[in-house]
Amino acid sequence: MNSREFSNHLKTDNVKINDPFWNKINETVRTSVIPYQYLALQDKVEGAEKSYCIENFIKAGRVAKKLRQGIESQKFPIDKWVYDEKNSDENAFHGYVFQDSDVYKWIEAVGYSLQNYPDSDLEEKANKFIDIICNAQLDNGYLDTLYIINDIDKTFTNLKDWHELYCFGHMVEGALSYYNATGNRKLLDAACRFADLICDTFGEDKIKGYPGHEIAEMALVKLYNETGKNEYLKTAKFFIDERGKRPYYFDCEKGTKSTAENYHYNQAHIPPRMQREAVGHAVRGVYLYSAMADIAKAYDDNELFNACKSIWNNIENKKMYITGGVGSTVDGEAFSFNYDLPNDLAYAETCASIGLIFFARRMAENEINSRYADVMERALYNTVLSGMSQDGKSFFYVNPLEVLPEASNSDSRKRHIKPVRQKWFSCACCPPNLARLISSLNEYIYTENDNTLFVNLYIGTELDCGKAHITVTSDYTESGKVAFKIDCKKPFTLALRIPGWCGKYTISEKFDIKNGYAFIKIRESVNISIEFKTDVKIIKCSNRVRANVGKAAVTRGPFVYCVEEADNGNNLQMLRLSDSPDFKYENGIIFAGGFREKEDDALYSEYKSPDLEECIIKFIPYYRWGNRGENEMSVYIRI
Amino acid sequence: MNSREFSNHLKTDNVKINDPFWNKINETVRTSVIPYQYLALQDKVEGAEKSYCIENFIKAGRVAKKLRQGIESQKFPIDKWVYDEKNSDENAFHGYVFQDSDVYKWIEAVGYSLQNYPDSDLEEKANKFIDIICNAQLDNGYLDTLYIINDIDKTFTNLKDWHELYCFGHMVEGALSYYNATGNRKLLDAACRFADLICDTFGEDKIKGYPGHEIAEMALVKLYNETGKNEYLKTAKFFIDERGKRPYYFDCEKGTKSTAENYHYNQAHIPPRMQREAVGHAVRGVYLYSAMADIAKAYDDNELFNACKSIWNNIENKKMYITGGVGSTVDGEAFSFNYDLPNDLAYAETCASIGLIFFARRMAENEINSRYADVMERALYNTVLSGMSQDGKSFFYVNPLEVLPEASNSDSRKRHIKPVRQKWFSCACCPPNLARLISSLNEYIYTENDNTLFVNLYIGTELDCGKAHITVTSDYTESGKVAFKIDCKKPFTLALRIPGWCGKYTISEKFDIKNGYAFIKIRESVNISIEFKTDVKIIKCSNRVRANVGKAAVTRGPFVYCVEEADNGNNLQMLRLSDSPDFKYENGIIFAGGFREKEDDALYSEYKSPDLEECIIKFIPYYRWGNRGENEMSVYIRI
Repeated sequence: MNSREFSNHLKTDNVKINDPFWNKINETVRTSVIPYQYLALQDKVEGAEKSYCIENFIKAGRVAKKLRQGIESQKFPIDKWVYDEKNSDENAFHGYVFQDSDVYKWIEAVGYSLQNYPDSDLEEKANKFIDIICNAQLDNGYLDTLYIINDIDKTFTNLKDWHELYCFGHMVEGALSYYNATGNRKLLDAACRFADLICDTFGEDKIKGYPGHEIAEMALVKLYNETGKNEYLKTAKFFIDERGKRPYYFDCEKGTKSTAENYHYNQAHIPPRMQREAVGHAVRGVYLYSAMADIAKAYDDNELFNACKSIWNNIENKKMYITGGVGSTVDGEAFSFNYDLPNDLAYAETCASIGLIFFARRMAENEINSRYADVMERALYNTVLSGMSQDGKSFFYVNPLEVLPEASNSDSRKRHIKPVRQKWFSCACCPPNLARLISSLNEYIYTENDNTLFVNLYIGTELDCGKAHITVTSDYTESGKVAFKIDCKKPFTLALRIPGWCGKYTISEKFDIKNGYAFIKIRESVNISIEFKTDVKIIKCSNRVRANVGKAAVTRGPFVYCVEEADNGNNLQMLRLSDSPDFKYENGIIFAGGFREKEDDALYSEYKSPDLEECIIKFIPYYRWGNRGENEMSVYIRI
Repeated sequence: MNSREFSNHLKTDNVKINDPFWNKINETVRTSVIPYQYLALQDKVEGAEKSYCIENFIKAGRVAKKLRQGIESQKFPIDKWVYDEKNSDENAFHGYVFQDSDVYKWIEAVGYSLQNYPDSDLEEKANKFIDIICNAQLDNGYLDTLYIINDIDKTFTNLKDWHELYCFGHMVEGALSYYNATGNRKLLDAACRFADLICDTFGEDKIKGYPGHEIAEMALVKLYNETGKNEYLKTAKFFIDERGKRPYYFDCEKGTKSTAENYHYNQAHIPPRMQREAVGHAVRGVYLYSAMADIAKAYDDNELFNACKSIWNNIENKKMYITGGVGSTVDGEAFSFNYDLPNDLAYAETCASIGLIFFARRMAENEINSRYADVMERALYNTVLSGMSQDGKSFFYVNPLEVLPEASNSDSRKRHIKPVRQKWFSCACCPPNLARLISSLNEYIYTENDNTLFVNLYIGTELDCGKAHITVTSDYTESGKVAFKIDCKKPFTLALRIPGWCGKYTISEKFDIKNGYAFIKIRESVNISIEFKTDVKIIKCSNRVRANVGKAAVTRGPFVYCVEEADNGNNLQMLRLSDSPDFKYENGIIFAGGFREKEDDALYSEYKSPDLEECIIKFIPYYRWGNRGENEMSVYIRI
């Protein structure tokens, strides 16, 4: 029996953001991140690691031309995860095997951005890239520069490791965004040709493979939604149904014999619909789970949805940092075991939290429950935003909850934890992923079905749907006040998410609470004002998490806070929060009464209650840490 | 100005151990560890990793014979750290580059053991090994099976990595122990011939190299002490004086160019006498520091002693676990930065604590101060003893202070932390090192100089020196009571170390306290009874150590205690010790009043004081942990 209630997210063309908090961030992405990445993709940023991304497409274009002319091209080995100028021929492919995806992500961000802010100059730049990309496409639709440049005879022979289907997925997502923004079909047509080739290649009675790094599944569902071509949806479902079946396809293609353990990393140890726990590479995981939720909805597939829900429960209740970070171990950039959420060894990749947001929205579209948007908000306002510096020019890949620069600089176990954001990574998945998520934020705010408009995030917007034209004015991140000005077109129900963090709130209209939403019947145009009390809260992490016993975190509204050395001196572990401190909030900063232990002289001494000095502890929002040079940081503090 | 006061340790032939605590352990080493290792060295332990040690000597013997006959021998590359049956020719050397040292350490243990417990069968076995070893020695005295088997033309061309001088050091130490026990000179003569070759090879106007892994320095001092041959002492000093000079010898031999940072690992970044901090591979470090202390004493070299003292201070005050473990990071098995003493990521190799004991005794022989024996005792009764199972058949290489088996089993960052002791390691430095230390414990108890006999450890013994014949009856580890029956030969001063852990004690004779020792003038035969109050103590670790804020450890006498899951259930982090608990001590076990937090339902929830249930917490001595199968363990507990 199906008790689910489906909904769909509103798209960018129906939702315009106008929000004091987000305008600034969008502006940074638009005026700083996107132009910066435009240069980075072409290796024009001095001092940054080379991308090779556009260079590869240009090389591939040359090879494609030769192939069309029937001229044999020189071949190079496809045997590595990364090809640099030292370990590969100068005419061969360079960069990571998934380097193509960077430009697709950039185009996706550009597409969303253009929908919000038309910009003919930017459009022209994107068109040039699209020309270069399409030039590299083969007549049969194939397009992956690694294989085109290095050895076209090897396509689709190593799905497990070499990311062809991953790059394809990003191509589709970029193409759709750009088409929706500009109406320019060139890249979309190319993506469809590649999609057609993939649908012809994989399936029952064809190659029974599936992607090593998931995303094609999600992308094919999107492409189906845009084009209505059933084959795309069917192939997405095929990838999910085939995954994890025995004998393992990844073994078949390599002639190896592996156990389930070997494929946890790829979530291919058992079929997805039998999975109950989030395991393996976290980004791959959340991308797969997102697609599973898509397919569960498209086919009204309860069994698959139950798998999604078990996995969701596992993440939300046992594997997610308070900041919405997931994938706590550097070891395979992966989900660790239950309750293993170390602060100073965290991985919590920016991309994994972005993928968690994808998963969350899709779960919300499968079932009405505010928990999904709660997690979406937690990840967005904390780990995702933390991924980018205030000026949009440097990025965190890894988002720890505790940092001691000395440890990061001298300890190989913590080398992944950077005490300051980096300019650009050769493995630059996070910065463009951030750009595309923030540029497409419009699509995460509202979901709707026939009767109801669900408000999942409280961001100032102008929105237009069949039910109403609505102007939302939001001071959510500061005062918690939000105003809805509704020009009603026909009666509907407005469902306002009550944030999980909020204990007290007022809504100026009558409402019923169900599944975490306040349902308000809208029969005519009306103004609604809401206030979510944004008291500072002290939050405890379960004592199952070893790193956090005896400690607590401070939050306000959607923001998790942290202490930094710049404000509180070094040795942050010596700080202690009072049990019931007098919090003072001022311009985004929280001041709290607390204590600092006097430093112990001896390494070991007979125990006595520590000497404490009263002090004022200063907390800043987690997403703003690391903008003042190398220094200690901690989310949790002793209490 | 020299304010130091030298002393010498008493040797095994003057000190017989008879102690309820140590008899059992000695017996285990004698009847279990030594016979077990005898088989292991010959690859006769089923299910254990192969040693190849004796096999290599046999192979080398064949090659040596050919060389003597002028027959060319087949050559094999010397290019790896470990040679197994897969990556090397079956006729080539197998095992780690330092595999020879295992049999030397075994012979050293056998020698000490024979002094305590004559055993003709064991002696015969050792003689057979010695024959095999000496058979492999070349006419010029050279003896390292890796080079003899694989390529004799390459000797002394890679001092940095391939451990020839390390194996030589262990050969000398084994030979000395065996000669002292049996009067059999065969191995000692062989060692001297090798030592002569080394003295002819290294020095001013000769090769200006020094060992990559220190120990030859210490061994040459010992050999000088036995033989009186000045060349041995001079070469030991040369190795120390030459180390760390620019240009780096390790660069010269390889044609590389390195910075100081590259040689922290080998303590060769700057000359030892300029060093002030313990850095790099911990075992190498403490072996070097031991030799520095030897040379500082032999040459009355204050500058070198000051370096030793700075390094000692750094270890004792900033880099040593409460268990006497040192070398806190798996990253290079090395000393980490100051105050970086993580519990669950600890390395704290058994061998490093053994080496710390070497260093401690040598510091005590340079300067009268009880701090050195305090550390010796801490390391001995905790990390060193923890290295071996109760039955002497399995061993810890790594000695963590907190273990969660799930983490060790699933997290690569913690893969070095074994939740149960292992049978034998192919890299088996720790088990034979343990055997030789415990078998030679007699030599760590007393030091003396002209006027004074210093008691550093309280172990039941019968001892004979020029000053007196003394019978020590000790119940130190249980009641803290020790009795001295002194048959005085001539007046002297007895200096009793007051253990650092002991706040209250009684001594039946009049005494003066100086430098941590109680000095008693002995003019005639007398019985002295001592009681060190062995109250259970709660010890705090400095709040500079992040892992331990808000926590404490429990100790009694020389023992650090820990909690295990087998006694206290899982989730040990939920336990809390009362501020002033009522301790009950029974048969080595401590019971304490405390609390257990109720498990939190939610991963994140608004903070409230935790629900506590009263409980009795059971502590066992740290050295006895891990004898009841895989389970959680923690030294520190919340308070």
